[in-house]
Amino acid sequence: MPHISLPEGLPGIRGPMAFRPETARPLNELVDILLHGPHTLTQAERELIATYVSSQNECRYCQTIHGAIAAHHLGGDEDLVRAVKAGPEHAPVSPKLKALLTIAAKTAESGRLVTAEDVQRARQEGATDLEIHDTVLIAAVFCLCNRYVDGLATWAPEDPAFYRQRAALVAAIGYTAATAASRPAPAGAAKR
Amino acid sequence: MPHISLPEGLPGIRGPMAFRPETARPLNELVDILLHGPHTLTQAERELIATYVSSQNECRYCQTIHGAIAAHHLGGDEDLVRAVKAGPEHAPVSPKLKALLTIAAKTAESGRLVTAEDVQRARQEGATDLEIHDTVLIAAVFCLCNRYVDGLATWAPEDPAFYRQRAALVAAIGYTAATAASRPAPAGAAKR
Repeated sequence: MPHISLPEGLPGIRGPMAFRPETARPLNELVDILLHGPHTLTQAERELIATYVSSQNECRYCQTIHGAIAAHHLGGDEDLVRAVKAGPEHAPVSPKLKALLTIAAKTAESGRLVTAEDVQRARQEGATDLEIHDTVLIAAVFCLCNRYVDGLATWAPEDPAFYRQRAALVAAIGYTAATAASRPAPAGAAKR
Repeated sequence: MPHISLPEGLPGIRGPMAFRPETARPLNELVDILLHGPHTLTQAERELIATYVSSQNECRYCQTIHGAIAAHHLGGDEDLVRAVKAGPEHAPVSPKLKALLTIAAKTAESGRLVTAEDVQRARQEGATDLEIHDTVLIAAVFCLCNRYVDGLATWAPEDPAFYRQRAALVAAIGYTAATAASRPAPAGAAKR
């Protein structure tokens, strides 16, 4: 049961986002720019970074929904998502993405763990400053989201089909629009 | 030296924010709503939550600037800020703020550590659902900011006078406006 009274029926981050739309708006905008907008990293690569960080932080809702979105962008390849979560170095992803996932995992534990060598390795594999910046920021944003979801004890569905269906919607229209599409009517909102 | 080429002369989070204004905008909006906007928690209380989390995460820039902003709102009481950082239970703050700082510290370590008892204690001391929600979200946002600042190896000034001066500006006009006021001219921006 969530720690505070949240609008019913919305799993994971969507409960607190409906409870506090003022903060949900800029948070969704930030995630849209980082994961859904135009970028030199593919949407699948960026969703894999979000998924891996959420998996390292043991946030069930976030790792499952972003893993489902990554798989959607990969034509349904859930095995690849599982391989990245099990350890990027042995996953069938590019050397550049392996280097970026290493930076992301260190950022998630503590930003102070990221070394000049980690960054040099990413650069040697072709990563730009913007891609390195956005990898650190995606990892940091998911340290936020994971704590927001779990710190309020939100609930997460068990059924994988739920996540696959939601993933298709988010992949199609983005985070801000998907949140707006599933917002409860104001009359149904929980009392503060 | 920062891990990527950032605009010069801007300490802490301000360097990456100038490098990537697209993501800086929603991030500043989120921080403005949580720390600077109208609220039933005072600005000093909210800045103390941000400072305490940044201190637990050992982010020197964030704990120093937000500690300076908290002290500014407290009429210059830097001793109180030091006392909160040393341990909220023994600091001269309200029982409600002690309970909220406990929730914030647990959220910073892992959201899964926050218990129903922690939340019940805050509620018994008078905290509302919105205040509990925002405490969790402030803690989560600073887990983002701390990692963003340290994951890119940004620099932080040593001189306390720098932070006091910046604190007065942020306290007066808020985060979005303070960032805009100190943004370098586009011609001076580092090449991506």
